[in-house]
Amino acid sequence: MTRLGSRAFKAPLALTQGDPKGVGPEITLKAFCARKDQDLPPFFVIGQPELYKRTSEDLGLKVPVEAATAEAACDVFARALPVIPLAPDLTGPAATIRSIELAVEAVAQGKARAVVTNPISKAALYDAGFKHPGHTEFLGELAQRHFGAPARPVMMLWSEELAVVPVTIHVALSRAPELLTHELIVETGRIVARDLRNRFGLASPRLAFAGLNPHAGEGGAMGREEIEVISPAIAELRAEGVDARGPFPADTLFHAAARKTYDVALCPTHDQALIPIKTLAFERAVNVTLGLPFFRASPDHGTAFDIAGRGVADPTSLIEAIKLAGRVSA
Amino acid sequence: MTRLGSRAFKAPLALTQGDPKGVGPEITLKAFCARKDQDLPPFFVIGQPELYKRTSEDLGLKVPVEAATAEAACDVFARALPVIPLAPDLTGPAATIRSIELAVEAVAQGKARAVVTNPISKAALYDAGFKHPGHTEFLGELAQRHFGAPARPVMMLWSEELAVVPVTIHVALSRAPELLTHELIVETGRIVARDLRNRFGLASPRLAFAGLNPHAGEGGAMGREEIEVISPAIAELRAEGVDARGPFPADTLFHAAARKTYDVALCPTHDQALIPIKTLAFERAVNVTLGLPFFRASPDHGTAFDIAGRGVADPTSLIEAIKLAGRVSA
Repeated sequence: MTRLGSRAFKAPLALTQGDPKGVGPEITLKAFCARKDQDLPPFFVIGQPELYKRTSEDLGLKVPVEAATAEAACDVFARALPVIPLAPDLTGPAATIRSIELAVEAVAQGKARAVVTNPISKAALYDAGFKHPGHTEFLGELAQRHFGAPARPVMMLWSEELAVVPVTIHVALSRAPELLTHELIVETGRIVARDLRNRFGLASPRLAFAGLNPHAGEGGAMGREEIEVISPAIAELRAEGVDARGPFPADTLFHAAARKTYDVALCPTHDQALIPIKTLAFERAVNVTLGLPFFRASPDHGTAFDIAGRGVADPTSLIEAIKLAGRVSA
Repeated sequence: MTRLGSRAFKAPLALTQGDPKGVGPEITLKAFCARKDQDLPPFFVIGQPELYKRTSEDLGLKVPVEAATAEAACDVFARALPVIPLAPDLTGPAATIRSIELAVEAVAQGKARAVVTNPISKAALYDAGFKHPGHTEFLGELAQRHFGAPARPVMMLWSEELAVVPVTIHVALSRAPELLTHELIVETGRIVARDLRNRFGLASPRLAFAGLNPHAGEGGAMGREEIEVISPAIAELRAEGVDARGPFPADTLFHAAARKTYDVALCPTHDQALIPIKTLAFERAVNVTLGLPFFRASPDHGTAFDIAGRGVADPTSLIEAIKLAGRVSA
């Protein structure tokens, strides 16, 4: 999706620490190093300054690190990575969780304009008593806590070439047909249309829906979900004024000419959505959460424990997440 | 898949007519025009010479058309499109069907080295009493008739960038999990490995299997087909000496670096296989049938009735099919 309004805004972005043993600290430092070349908006990270100093030293990155407040972060950003310190006794998973809480609080208080999260390890957090299925659900709860409004998070993968929304996400494929309800499709479409309008500055976002079945069911010959569920849901969205189209066969929805006809593709299953964007923009895809009272982006990769500490982590996806958050948040 | 042995062979390729009202005649004439620029191997088409003469004239293509025999086709090819005439009374669907029969017969008799089929309209053929679900099944029956061996056709989509095989194909998505049996996976893998070895000249073809579920099931958390069905099938193939790997998460299997690690990706569902190749190589993808006693390729598009006769049909996929058939058939 290349159409995007441009807006100026002063507050910095709030980056979370993520898992301290993953690549988060390293790619945060590397993103800071790239701030001039990549024209990045100012950001701070919420974590232990010592972690960033040690990582910079261990990897020979020579990044100055400075403890700061959110208010001072923009000034500090010119000379050093601003780190908003956590309570000194917080380490491990407790620090990871607290960093996320404080990032949302900073946005709620107007001290930051959007949240960019570094990768977490769900396994590590579960061991420490974390009760949420994942990052996104936790952000939904924090949104409720700090903004007082119920949130309905919707995952979008974004790149300059293509933006996609999987309507069902992390479920066994055999369950996807039953989970793909009229209500889910309409609700997802509404949130996507609203957020692309309000946050991405698209006056009338064009939503293209893929079918669930091969050839979008070919008129019912290969599955009836398009006829019985998806088409009526699209009709309801259209009746509400959403520019929703389809369902289209998923396999012919992602070549260059097809991509020009819509702003976001909504796909019934995880793989239908994630295959094309990871094929086209593997290193550059950004994970975006719509449906929250604030904008949240994150790199589209995990903690990468296997390469953490070696200095070889690629900061591209985090840099793209920071750029996007800078462009869209307001 | 860029690795491919190169072989010299003298016999021409046999092109079928396809639906006379579709774009087949037009793209065949255009492919003939491109034979020098594209360094195409000699081919003949089986159809009514009058159809090609009229189409050439109507579209201003100025292609000389000459009735010929298979034996004379290579000589004729230098100066005119060689057309092996059907019986004069054959028109419409009957001509379409007869052209396919004669193409297989020509290969069986050693007069052609491979079959390249032009698009057919199943609806038109059904109306004329055609009893087969599609092109591929009909070719399977003709293989049995002319070669005396049972055929088990396997569809592969091929391009220079990527080759994919959908293990289940034209079925409702809700049925894919139950149809994805151990036997189907092993049988498909065997045929793919054998034909990539024998026809594509790969000494030890590398087969990468995708999982059915998001993240290939993530250890059983999102579906158990990887554990219960796909992994044991891969193990059986490996025990037979096939270089089969996986199952891998489908979404991270198709970026440039991943594609270098295998020769063909086998995917449980239609869209998992067709989305990435149509995203990367929409105009250039070639539909290949493995598992037959001869090599068959076809353009990866339909009759395109909506644009037939207007001169705007793109012959790229047919040209790629002819090139591939010329490189691999023996």
